[in-house]
Amino acid sequence: MGIFDTEQRTISPALIIGTGMIGTSIGLALTKAGVPVYLRDSDPAHVEAAEALGAGSAALPLAEEVHLVVVAVPPEKLAEQVAEALSAYPEATVTDVGSVKSTVLKQLHETDAEAELYRYCGSHPMAGSEKSGPLAAKADMFVDRTWVVTPHDSASAHAVLDVRELAQTCGARITTLGAAHHDEAVAQVSHLPQLVSSLLAGMLTDVPPEHLKLAGQGLRDTTRIADSNPGLWRQIIEANSEAVHSQLEILRDHLNWLLDGFNDGTKLEAFLAEGRAGRQSLPGKHGTAAQAFAQLAIEIPDEVGALAGIFAAIKDTGINIEDVAIDHDQNRDVGYLEVAVAPDKADALKELLLAAGWRMKEE
Amino acid sequence: MGIFDTEQRTISPALIIGTGMIGTSIGLALTKAGVPVYLRDSDPAHVEAAEALGAGSAALPLAEEVHLVVVAVPPEKLAEQVAEALSAYPEATVTDVGSVKSTVLKQLHETDAEAELYRYCGSHPMAGSEKSGPLAAKADMFVDRTWVVTPHDSASAHAVLDVRELAQTCGARITTLGAAHHDEAVAQVSHLPQLVSSLLAGMLTDVPPEHLKLAGQGLRDTTRIADSNPGLWRQIIEANSEAVHSQLEILRDHLNWLLDGFNDGTKLEAFLAEGRAGRQSLPGKHGTAAQAFAQLAIEIPDEVGALAGIFAAIKDTGINIEDVAIDHDQNRDVGYLEVAVAPDKADALKELLLAAGWRMKEE
Repeated sequence: MGIFDTEQRTISPALIIGTGMIGTSIGLALTKAGVPVYLRDSDPAHVEAAEALGAGSAALPLAEEVHLVVVAVPPEKLAEQVAEALSAYPEATVTDVGSVKSTVLKQLHETDAEAELYRYCGSHPMAGSEKSGPLAAKADMFVDRTWVVTPHDSASAHAVLDVRELAQTCGARITTLGAAHHDEAVAQVSHLPQLVSSLLAGMLTDVPPEHLKLAGQGLRDTTRIADSNPGLWRQIIEANSEAVHSQLEILRDHLNWLLDGFNDGTKLEAFLAEGRAGRQSLPGKHGTAAQAFAQLAIEIPDEVGALAGIFAAIKDTGINIEDVAIDHDQNRDVGYLEVAVAPDKADALKELLLAAGWRMKEE
Repeated sequence: MGIFDTEQRTISPALIIGTGMIGTSIGLALTKAGVPVYLRDSDPAHVEAAEALGAGSAALPLAEEVHLVVVAVPPEKLAEQVAEALSAYPEATVTDVGSVKSTVLKQLHETDAEAELYRYCGSHPMAGSEKSGPLAAKADMFVDRTWVVTPHDSASAHAVLDVRELAQTCGARITTLGAAHHDEAVAQVSHLPQLVSSLLAGMLTDVPPEHLKLAGQGLRDTTRIADSNPGLWRQIIEANSEAVHSQLEILRDHLNWLLDGFNDGTKLEAFLAEGRAGRQSLPGKHGTAAQAFAQLAIEIPDEVGALAGIFAAIKDTGINIEDVAIDHDQNRDVGYLEVAVAPDKADALKELLLAAGWRMKEE
């Protein structure tokens, strides 16, 4: 165990087992970062494709040489492949990138890998798409995305640090959660949305093509992930069945609430407002709060062309505006242009506009 | 009625009543196409914003001069504003851009505008976003989007042609449907998706912020339109209440089917496959079939670096590949690279690759 001296910790070289979209993307990201990568897959065409794309080498590494094994196979094969990797690569930290963490951990405890489990730490990069296979891989798949690390009770510090380094090397932001906690969270933010998208898209099979021509971006966005691989998602949902089922039951309760008294306008509007509030509770794409912009309210003078003047003045400052809206103060009978800017630009914008003679709303 | 001589037909100048996102976008598109546009809105700040953005003039036109009136106000005000426009602008074709067509038509028949209804033809541009107000407008909002024209029984050819010209001038693709037919279609492809997105997003209000950090692009896409204006959508749903309610009931049946025997893997996978089939039935973004690409299968020789060689050969042809996948023939034990290309490029790609020594799968 001297090998687990912190001084000697390294994730290089790494072996990726399973060269689908996620495995190949990790190979591309690690290779780009200078980490030597070996690739393995039960399908020779997939390994060859991943190698051709530059995700690593299809050659066989020396077992003792490998320091990190990333298991990126379908959910039903995860535990078996992790156990095999722990046995075959005695110096390596082993992680998997499966979408459900409790099931694989439970299955691992039932294998004879128990004594080696201190070298295992699960993880889950929250990235991907409705596509699959090595040709859907991208080196920047994980940049600025959340990568959940799920240490179990007997995971060594060494193993956890290695998996964190993997996530960091791929450009991801790390969140640490226990396996059960993780599974409950992804039932809410990933597995339920997948089934709802499939539910909605499934109804389109009964819609005449003439009607489908009317589809706009809203329908396209809501059904995009319904194009995902049914076999893969069946395995994911099965591995997290209980949590997903209870989410679906809550969804049914909400749906029944909406349907009972559907003609009550107040109720319908409350339902729509609740949806908007939920949507707005999502953090921004870089993990910041969605509403984290600074707001400035610029008074619109009561004269022709005033608003055009404000637009021109903002443009002159060279500061990028994230959003704009018009507001009206009924008491003072004065209009405001509300602009949203990055917080670190708000003071500069305010000063420049005041200097140019515009007035701001008093807070 | 001599004015309705085909020779004299023109949509110029146009008046837009309601300078929200859609009205202002139409103003921008018409102005860009050289049509003089007048703007009206009950909110002076909205008119001023639309004018400042270049969507037209806030000046008052001479009533007899206006040849097209576009009513783009909230659903509850549509019939009243259309009737008023028919009376105020005696030489104009009047259209509205509301999301539901039967309700406004029924209401119009109940007004004293009956005798003038031959100058009215409804329409519905299938574009927009979760945003609202003039500042969310874009001149290219309707380019390549479907614009439904809904002539009623007594609409004159002149009126229908004017509305078609409006849609064409804005860059849209025209589809013609009766009002009731339209409403049934949008219940399926627009109103149901809106409520499903709100349903899913509404559940997020009970999800802890720590879990929301795990949200990926799938949840963002499925809930985007839930950020829409609740008051506006309440009016839209109310105007199409019966059709939407029956869609929601079918959705509930599908959901119950899924929940009953949720642990049946075969059933779950069939449900997911049905969703994928529905999604794939959507036409491509330019109205072509989603799967309209030509497919070529290039044999992957059983030698090191073969796939990289094919990638390089494709790159050399300069032909753009839309999608790629790996396939494997179990009987012949040979792999294929399946590539999707625009139909008019398929023959050229095939010839160039054959000339370079690659083999194709026999059909």
